[in-house]
Amino acid sequence: MRIGIIGIGVVGREVINILEEQGQKIEKLFSEKVEVVKICNRSPKEGLDSYEMTHDYKVLLEDNSIDTIIELVGGIEIPYDIAKKTLEAGKNFITANKYLLAIHGKELFVLATENNSKLFYEAAVGGGIPVLSPLKEGLFPNEITRVRGILNGTSNYILTEMDGGATFSEALEGATIKGYAEADPTFDIEGIDTAHKISLLSYLAFGKFIDFNEIEIEGITKLTIEDIKNAKEQEAKYKLIGEAKLEGDKISLSVKPTLISSSELLYGVDGVYNAVEIDGTYTGKTILYGEGAGGSATASAVISDLYKVIASKNWN
Amino acid sequence: MRIGIIGIGVVGREVINILEEQGQKIEKLFSEKVEVVKICNRSPKEGLDSYEMTHDYKVLLEDNSIDTIIELVGGIEIPYDIAKKTLEAGKNFITANKYLLAIHGKELFVLATENNSKLFYEAAVGGGIPVLSPLKEGLFPNEITRVRGILNGTSNYILTEMDGGATFSEALEGATIKGYAEADPTFDIEGIDTAHKISLLSYLAFGKFIDFNEIEIEGITKLTIEDIKNAKEQEAKYKLIGEAKLEGDKISLSVKPTLISSSELLYGVDGVYNAVEIDGTYTGKTILYGEGAGGSATASAVISDLYKVIASKNWN
Repeated sequence: MRIGIIGIGVVGREVINILEEQGQKIEKLFSEKVEVVKICNRSPKEGLDSYEMTHDYKVLLEDNSIDTIIELVGGIEIPYDIAKKTLEAGKNFITANKYLLAIHGKELFVLATENNSKLFYEAAVGGGIPVLSPLKEGLFPNEITRVRGILNGTSNYILTEMDGGATFSEALEGATIKGYAEADPTFDIEGIDTAHKISLLSYLAFGKFIDFNEIEIEGITKLTIEDIKNAKEQEAKYKLIGEAKLEGDKISLSVKPTLISSSELLYGVDGVYNAVEIDGTYTGKTILYGEGAGGSATASAVISDLYKVIASKNWN
Repeated sequence: MRIGIIGIGVVGREVINILEEQGQKIEKLFSEKVEVVKICNRSPKEGLDSYEMTHDYKVLLEDNSIDTIIELVGGIEIPYDIAKKTLEAGKNFITANKYLLAIHGKELFVLATENNSKLFYEAAVGGGIPVLSPLKEGLFPNEITRVRGILNGTSNYILTEMDGGATFSEALEGATIKGYAEADPTFDIEGIDTAHKISLLSYLAFGKFIDFNEIEIEGITKLTIEDIKNAKEQEAKYKLIGEAKLEGDKISLSVKPTLISSSELLYGVDGVYNAVEIDGTYTGKTILYGEGAGGSATASAVISDLYKVIASKNWN
């Protein structure tokens, strides 16, 4: 496998770190060599001296010795260009970019099928938690009636801090200092990021892409200290819940602060942890819980997609 | 895919039920016909008139039009014979039998490799919860340091009832009436079933089979009402925990009643639910939770292995 990595932020660095640390194990498992051929970076290349670097991602796309592109750029315009060109060229495209897939997924999945290329995105939902494969493969016999979850680490951290007595702005400041929140935290606190993720879960659960504009979205910015106190008095907590449910033929998606009682497992999902709850006709309720963000957890999920590339090489 | 099913108890019936209900979906996903060719039953065949039935499992093993054997017999002698002959014949062997694999797994896994046959057993641990695939594939980049879990629904049901005020024998009686406990519940309440399961989790986590006799096993039969009360005073609960951990080069496996504090997610895993907690170097703590027993949940996991059969058809 010959890999090109585009975007070397926190996750990209960790992908390289894990490939270096676990390289031998991975090559043994895959029965083939795994090589990072080129890296496209914007930021300084400290510690990456042994790799071929470029600032121009097109160099990687035009290198036909590369069979697998890992896109960790963020944003949407450049990733869209990368995704299209990679898939059109019949190469494997791996991304953690939920924004890209929530907006352009419908087109990109078709493109992958048409070109017999692979598109994997385990890291896009739930960080390091294996979510997409268990939903798509492990639970496939079920008809899924609902998927919901705590899908954004930053907002869950803020809500946990508020539950502990902090104000919203104190909690947001803490999240920024700890590196959980982006410089612009709008997507996190306004529920947009959660909406991207529930849109992908909905696609896997129900096999149908729902237009992003049809998702009812409310973030956590309107929650007051009073709300949190009232919740506490009821032995409950507000959690930002993304939910996709099927009623009759109707799929509806929403993101909103939701009261979760102490009798539910989701009540105990605090800080930057995520959890996804899947209701299936045969398995009842299944919950997948773990680190929803962070470089090494997300990088682990990215690399787990390399396994899919190998495993699916000769799939029908 | 041409399937033979040996053993038509609660799970076997549900496997057939799901294949009937979801047949069209499954065949579309697999791009091939999925047919139950023969069924081996001991008990009456009500509702199975449309299938070819036999009381002799050897009939299924000798039918070379069958490519996939699903073993749901229980016990160990006959399943061992079925497993060996199926794998030696290069066919796919799917089982929910943890007892069989904990005792003969080492030999059977080698047999599968030697004969290029497939052995899948998702239903053997955690009932309907996707556990083995997420551990083996989703979390594969990690070095796993510990796996532990609530792995036996019957004993967890009993402990939950005792926490609610019942005596051990009242709780056991309740479990029997509700169909959770076997006629002979020894394996459940003495921790043997949990030990079978932790042995399989350990194999997947650490890649090494530990001799079953090396597992330190204590069941729940010695727990008193006093113990439960004391736990409650500490805001904790006793759970029957199976644990496999790696310290240095040493893998150690144990099963014992363990105090779980209310701050842990496992505290909220009650009744017949199971949960598996996996500690990995990159992903930290991942927890998989769901119905650990019951016909339809277990059958869903059995059928998810058919997907593996298809997906792995052309694997290296």
